[in-house]
Formats: sequence, C-alpha cells, structure tokens
Amino acid sequence: MAARTMGYRTVVLEPDPASPAGAVADQHLVAPYDDDDALAHLAATCAVVTTEFENPPAAALHRLAEQLPVRPSPHAIEITQDRRREKQFLRSLGVPTAPFAVIETGDDLARAGDTIAMPAILKTARMGYDGKGQVAIDAPADLAAAWHSVGEVPCVLEQRLPLEREVSVVLARGVDGSLASFDPVTNVHRDGILDLTVVPDQIEGASELAEQVAVALDFVGVLAVEMFVVHGHLLVNEIAPRPHNSGHWTLDAAATSQFEQQLRAVCGVPLGDPRRCVPGAAMVNLLGDVWDAGEPDWAGALAVDTAHLHLYGKSEPRPGRKMGHITVTAGTSGEAAQLAVACRSHARRRVQLDL
Amino acid sequence: MAARTMGYRTVVLEPDPASPAGAVADQHLVAPYDDDDALAHLAATCAVVTTEFENPPAAALHRLAEQLPVRPSPHAIEITQDRRREKQFLRSLGVPTAPFAVIETGDDLARAGDTIAMPAILKTARMGYDGKGQVAIDAPADLAAAWHSVGEVPCVLEQRLPLEREVSVVLARGVDGSLASFDPVTNVHRDGILDLTVVPDQIEGASELAEQVAVALDFVGVLAVEMFVVHGHLLVNEIAPRPHNSGHWTLDAAATSQFEQQLRAVCGVPLGDPRRCVPGAAMVNLLGDVWDAGEPDWAGALAVDTAHLHLYGKSEPRPGRKMGHITVTAGTSGEAAQLAVACRSHARRRVQLDL
Repeated sequence: MAARTMGYRTVVLEPDPASPAGAVADQHLVAPYDDDDALAHLAATCAVVTTEFENPPAAALHRLAEQLPVRPSPHAIEITQDRRREKQFLRSLGVPTAPFAVIETGDDLARAGDTIAMPAILKTARMGYDGKGQVAIDAPADLAAAWHSVGEVPCVLEQRLPLEREVSVVLARGVDGSLASFDPVTNVHRDGILDLTVVPDQIEGASELAEQVAVALDFVGVLAVEMFVVHGHLLVNEIAPRPHNSGHWTLDAAATSQFEQQLRAVCGVPLGDPRRCVPGAAMVNLLGDVWDAGEPDWAGALAVDTAHLHLYGKSEPRPGRKMGHITVTAGTSGEAAQLAVACRSHARRRVQLDL
Repeated sequence: MAARTMGYRTVVLEPDPASPAGAVADQHLVAPYDDDDALAHLAATCAVVTTEFENPPAAALHRLAEQLPVRPSPHAIEITQDRRREKQFLRSLGVPTAPFAVIETGDDLARAGDTIAMPAILKTARMGYDGKGQVAIDAPADLAAAWHSVGEVPCVLEQRLPLEREVSVVLARGVDGSLASFDPVTNVHRDGILDLTVVPDQIEGASELAEQVAVALDFVGVLAVEMFVVHGHLLVNEIAPRPHNSGHWTLDAAATSQFEQQLRAVCGVPLGDPRRCVPGAAMVNLLGDVWDAGEPDWAGALAVDTAHLHLYGKSEPRPGRKMGHITVTAGTSGEAAQLAVACRSHARRRVQLDL
C-alpha cells in the first residue's frame, strides 16, 4: 500500500493466492519462490526486487541479483535466515548475544549440554518464527528428546537468561549508507508471539548496536534488531531483514512509516524522517482468538479516538494467526499501552453463558 | 486504501476502467453510475454506500437509499451538486455568501446584470470543478456572450469580491451526530485549480460555520466547506460532500486522515482524533505539467525528509490533471509551504536548452 501511495507499480511473487500483498499489487504471480518463469518475469519487469520475509530460497535471490538490484542483498538475507550464521555473524562483530552452541550432530548435542548453562532453549536454525521450532530445556538430559522432537535438524542451543525486558530497534539504511532509526521500543511476547509494543523505550545504546549490525551487513532497506535486556545490558537476540511487527506503530505515530521507509531505501530515494510525532504510542496484535466469539466489536474498540485499526484481509482467523493490529497514541507510553490493551478487550466479544 | 487498511471490503462503481479506486477495490464495476445491474449488485453486496464525488445521478442514489444506508444522504449530495440549491440552502441558514443571482432564463440574465455589482463571475450550476464552467464578467454587457459560451445552461452569477484569502474546513460528522473538524487551512489557487494548502490557518469562526452547515444537512461523512475571507469576514463559497483536496495534508500530519475519517463516519464507528500532530504542514498539487520535461525527479523532491509523495496511478499526465500531491511538515506553516513548493520545483526536471 505504501508503494501504491507513492505511485510505484508492484509485482508480487507469492504462492498463496489469497495473499494480502497480492491483492493490492499490480500483478500477483501465484507460484513458488523458486519458479523459473516467475523469477524471469520479475527480472524482466522490475527495476528493483525486495523481500517481505526472510525465507525465500537464497538461490532464487542470487539468480535475481545477477540481473537487477536485490535489496536487501541475498548475502544479508542468507545470514538472517539461518540462526547459526546469524549468531556467528554477531559474534564476529563483537556484538553481545546470549551464550549459544550450534548443534548439527549428536556429538554437537552432547558438547552443547556441557557448555551451555541450563535452563536453555533449543531453536531450529531455519524457518522459525513466532516461537515455532523452539523447545525449552531445563536439564541436559532433556536435550536428546527435544532435538528428536524437531526432527534432528540443525539447531542452536541458547542459554535462557533472566530477561528484564525485550526491546527492538527498527531502522532503515539507504543505498548511500544513510541511516534512519526509529525509537527503540519495548516488546511483550505471549506464547512466543509478539503481543504488545510500547513506544518509546528509554534504553541507551540500542540504536547504536542496531546500526552497527546494519552497517556490517551493508544492509539496504528496513532492518529490525531484537534485543534482550539482562542485568541492564543489551544482548542481540535476532535480526529481521524487513519491516517488522514491532515497527507497525510507525504507521500512525511516526513521521514516516517503516513501509514507506522500506520503499525509499530500496528505490534509492532519500530516507524519510523517522521521528515519533507523539509522546507515547503502543501496538497490540490481533490474533485469531480475538474472533473466538464472532466478529469482534470494532466500534467498541475504536471508542478510543487515538486508536487505529489495521486488518490484513486474511481469510480465516486461526488461533495464533496474526490477523491485524491496533495502534494507539497517548500522552505517555504507559497510557498508550493501557489504552491499546483496553481497545483489544473491547473488540473481543464475550461469550454469553446461561447458567 | 483506508478501507483496505481497516479490513473493509469494497466494491467500486466507476465507468473508467483505469480508475485508481477500482485498482485497490475488491471489485470494480465498470459501468455508468446509473446502470441497473451495477446498482442492484451494490445493493445486494454492500452494507453501506458512499460517494467519492458529488456528481453521481441523484436518482441512482435515491434508488440505493431505498435498499441500504447511503452516507452522505442523497438529499445532502443533491444540494451540493447544484450551485443554485447550494447557495439557496446557505442563504436559508443565514450563512454569509457573496451576493449571487440564479440565471435560468434570458429575463434572469437581464435582472442579474442589474442586481449583481461588477466585476462578477458566471458559474454553471452543475458539474463545475477546478474552475471549469466559470467565466469572469467585467461589465453587464459581457453577460449574454458569457452565458452563451457555457451553452445557456442554468447558472449562478456571483459578485467577485476583493479576497484576502481562501480558507477551508474539512470535518467529519458521524451517524450519531458527533463532529470532528480538522484545522482550518489556507488555500492558494492557480488557474482555478487548488495549488497549495497551508496548515493551519488562524482564522476564527470557520469551524463553527462549517459545523453549522454539516448539522443543517444532517450530514454523515467528510464534508469540506470552502470560504472566502473578505474584509476580515467569512463568506461560504462552496461545499464538497466528500474528502477534499484541501484535506490531503491529513494523510501525513493529522492523527487521523480524512479518508479514514470518511470510513469511520459512513460505517458508524466512532470518529478518530482530528488533531494536527505537527506545528505546520503544507500540500502542493502535482498537475500534469510537472511531467512536461519527462518523469519528474522524485529523489530530488524527497530530499526534504519530512516530504511525502502521493501519486494516484493515473495513466496519462495531461495539463491541469491532478496526478498526485506532496505533503510536507515543518516547525511553522510558512516553512512547510516554502518547503512544499521547493520540493515540487525539484521534481520538475528542467528542459536543457542548447543555445
């Protein structure tokens, strides 16, 4: 929609025929990400290619990159689509992370149980998101069963640390190396899925860490860096090479949204002003369970006049599926957070019980 | 696009197959506004009908209104689609306007020449916009030729007054009668077409006048009221029963855009916060002539980091055709206006002359 607003024409390659992005694109190629004809069509039609999530096959991105600019680069995406590379990349930069070990073999598993202090968390190296592909480990003895449960694919074992909170920084980096960071935000997860983002977070040093990562990746586009705050120190948890759920607040509370910023960056026009235009803002996700008692009461949710409703047009509200979000602005971040949660509660119709 | 953002599904009835609204709608009915089948389809498919401009045939709107809510009402639209009714409606409210006379016959013409002081302006009663259907009159003797030049259709003759400036108020009114007015703005026209909007205008009493008009029309939706400032007094010039060009700044500088507000009003959910979120803002239109020397230099235009580009996806840049606009925010309204005009100048490529 940011592309339409700015007058760019878009071709979306996405196998899901009901894709929300496909519905607003000028053309929707319903095909696998590595489909020869679809890739050839993209290369022949487009001036630049970008990605909306980190899991298209790297080979497809490399093929496109031989023919036209792909931003962010296939190299940057390859690093972020595999937790092993991502962690090793961060370590190589001297960026602090939780202690971790890579597990590819049974021997690795045994060693990891010795070197990583418990409790820990086993994460599959690839295709994990929203808490998927993650198993909590309380003792080394649990490791073998946990690894078996994820199919003995390559994994990373991370020490579980006493988090004070989770924060993230969403930034954009232009073709010319210019940087524009949105405010750091606080993220609250629930069952491994982002539930609430509160803006701004007063943490120091987070933007600098995120910018260090962006520069080291020679990143072009919007990048999100998720961090843990542990004993007052920042550890980088994860990198997402795209507009990020924790940046959705920018749609209604920043001078430029992360989506417009992504376009500006990948199209090589100057970045927009990333400043927040209100004292406080918050975003709550709307998962499928909000529909449990029927179509939510959106009028009730929007009784807060600084609330904005965003629904993605997905067909079916399944549990855990991100169907949309609500943003709220207010005089403080705390007030915004309270209002946002209250809006969502209003939206969720109560089941009437006859007792 | 506001509808897509909020998760509403839309059917657009618009005869132009290249319609920008049709391109983002779930369904585009390419048919005349009074097409029987298309109207029946709208009535059978939709929960509510609204209009994006004031000129669909009133009979079609009345027919729809027998079957489902039409907001704003056909009654309100009928008044605004005919300058005679509009002026008489305003006069009946006691709202000040420029002196005017209705011309339907040769006798009316002769009388009007006597009663309306010169200079004056002859405007066709229907289908006028962007200065179309308007003829400047310097002396009563010019009247007959002027009327002839517009085909002797019903007209309104208005006294031309020494304007200090033109201002407008865009507001929304909900189904429950709630009102939310955006800041009054200053409008600068060029060749009869809006060129520049500067936000806010410090005029007093403009919002109250606009709200009086909205209440008297029992209006539901977004309404724009254009006014003249003459010797420090406000005269209402024109009413537009829809989101208005002078409200486009709200897309990037108000807590809620006029388009989201239109949806909230017509869908019966509470109105959003209309507050401006920056000290100053401005909007410049991009007419076809900006393309005179080729595709404009958008990167140059966007070197101002608080500028946002909006292009409507129209196929052909014809002279006088509104192709898009640029919004800019700044520390003062004057600074925003200067920056906006500068952005547009940057966009317009200069023709290189070899002398």
